[in-house]
Amino acid sequence: MMEANFKMTVEYDGTAFSGWQRQNDRPTIQGEIETVLTRILNQHIRISGSGRTDAGVHARAQVASFHARTDLTAGDIKRGVNALIKGPIVIRDCIPAEPDFHAQYSARSKEYHYCILNRETPCAIGRNYQWHVRKPLNIDIMNQCCAVLIGEFDFKSFENTGSPRTSTVRRIMHAGIVADSKDRLLFKIRATGFLKYMVRNIVGTLVQAGLEKITPADFNAILTACDRTVAGPTAPPHGLFLHRVYYS
Amino acid sequence: MMEANFKMTVEYDGTAFSGWQRQNDRPTIQGEIETVLTRILNQHIRISGSGRTDAGVHARAQVASFHARTDLTAGDIKRGVNALIKGPIVIRDCIPAEPDFHAQYSARSKEYHYCILNRETPCAIGRNYQWHVRKPLNIDIMNQCCAVLIGEFDFKSFENTGSPRTSTVRRIMHAGIVADSKDRLLFKIRATGFLKYMVRNIVGTLVQAGLEKITPADFNAILTACDRTVAGPTAPPHGLFLHRVYYS
Repeated sequence: MMEANFKMTVEYDGTAFSGWQRQNDRPTIQGEIETVLTRILNQHIRISGSGRTDAGVHARAQVASFHARTDLTAGDIKRGVNALIKGPIVIRDCIPAEPDFHAQYSARSKEYHYCILNRETPCAIGRNYQWHVRKPLNIDIMNQCCAVLIGEFDFKSFENTGSPRTSTVRRIMHAGIVADSKDRLLFKIRATGFLKYMVRNIVGTLVQAGLEKITPADFNAILTACDRTVAGPTAPPHGLFLHRVYYS
Repeated sequence: MMEANFKMTVEYDGTAFSGWQRQNDRPTIQGEIETVLTRILNQHIRISGSGRTDAGVHARAQVASFHARTDLTAGDIKRGVNALIKGPIVIRDCIPAEPDFHAQYSARSKEYHYCILNRETPCAIGRNYQWHVRKPLNIDIMNQCCAVLIGEFDFKSFENTGSPRTSTVRRIMHAGIVADSKDRLLFKIRATGFLKYMVRNIVGTLVQAGLEKITPADFNAILTACDRTVAGPTAPPHGLFLHRVYYS
C-alpha cells in the first residue's frame, strides 16, 4: 500500500457544531470527519484544515489535507465519507495531492462571505444563515469603510482579545458589500489570512458605520489604532461562510 | 371597541411544523398564531389562511385574515405576535382589511417556488430548503414540459389520490424553470389555485422529464390522462415555498 496525500473540499452547516477544530466530547466538523476516515481507512487519521471556523460558522468549501496508507482511490474515500458521516457535512471533492501539499500552509488566500438580513421583521426562513439587522443600513458608507481595509495593515484592532500571534499584519485583496436581494446584504472579503474573529469584528464595526453611528474616518481611525477595544461589537457567527480557499 | 378585519402576511420555515392547518397536539403554523392572537386580543381567535401548506413546506408570504374586537392597531398586533410567538414564524405585515376580505376566498392566484439542488454530492447548507437531485437535469426539456401546463386544464393527474374536490380544473398563468446558480434550479408556478400535492406532483414528474425518462409528449399525455397513477412521484415538501398570494 502506498502512502498518499489527499486534498478534500468540505461543505458544512456549522449550526450544530462546536466549530471546526476537534474537541473532546463535543461535536466538531474535524472530529466527525476524522472518526469516519479512521474507520474507512482502518488507521488513525488526523486531518489539517485550512484554518479553524468558530461554532455556528458555515463553509461552502473548507479545505483539509491528510496522509494515509491505502489502496482506496480519492473517489472511494469521498463516497465512503459521504455515505457514513453524520450531520450536515458533505465532502464535495477529494483528490490526490502532491506530497508536500498542506491545507493550511499551502493556502495563499481565503475568501469569507457574511450575510445580513436588513429589514424590520426578524428572519424565519434561513435564520441560521444570516444576521438580522433591524434598522436600515447605508451600504455606500459601509463600502467606503471597506475601501479603507484594502491593502496590507496590522489588523490588531479586529482581532479577538487574548489570542497571541507572531504577527497581526495581513493583506486584504478585496472587501465589499453588495445588495444580494431587496433586503439581503452580502459582505465579501478576501485576504492572505484572518485573525481570530477578524471577519466578525470587521462586520460588527461595518454595521456601526451602516447605522451611521461612526463615519468612514472613524473606521479608519479604528483600524490604525491597533486596539481591539475601539472596534465595534463582534457580529454573530451564523451569518459567516468560509467561501473559498485559494492555492497557487 | 370596534370589530375589525385584519390581513396578515406570514413568513415561516415549515421544517418543524405539521403543516399550516391547526391540529390537536401537533405544532402547526395556524395553531401557533391563533394561540398567540387569542392571548394578545383576549378573545378566541380563528384565522383563515389562503390555503393549507403541507408539513415541511415553507412560506415567504402566506396570507391569513381574521376578525377581532379590539382597540389595538394592526401594527400593535404585528409587534405583539412577533414578540411572543415561538418558532420560526414571522408576521411580515398586518394591516386593516375591508370587512369582506377573506384570505382564501378573495385570492385571485398564488405563486409557488420549488428549489432543486442538482449536483452529485448531497446538500449540507440549506438542506431544509431544497431537494437534492443527484443526476444532471435537462432544463430545456423541463421547460418544454412547463409550456404544456400553461392554460386551463383538468389537473386531476397531479392531484393527490383520495382528495375529493368539486372541480379539478385550474388555470396556470406561469410555469418555468430558471438556473438560480451553478447547481440550483428554481421552478416557479402561478395559478388560480392548486390541488392537494399539485406542485409537488408536477415537480416530481418534471424531474422524470429532466432525467430524460419521459418526453414532453409523455408529459402532455400524463396531463390529459386525468389519472394520478400515470404521473411521476411526489417531490419532497422541503423544496417548496408559497411565494406570494395575489388579490385584486
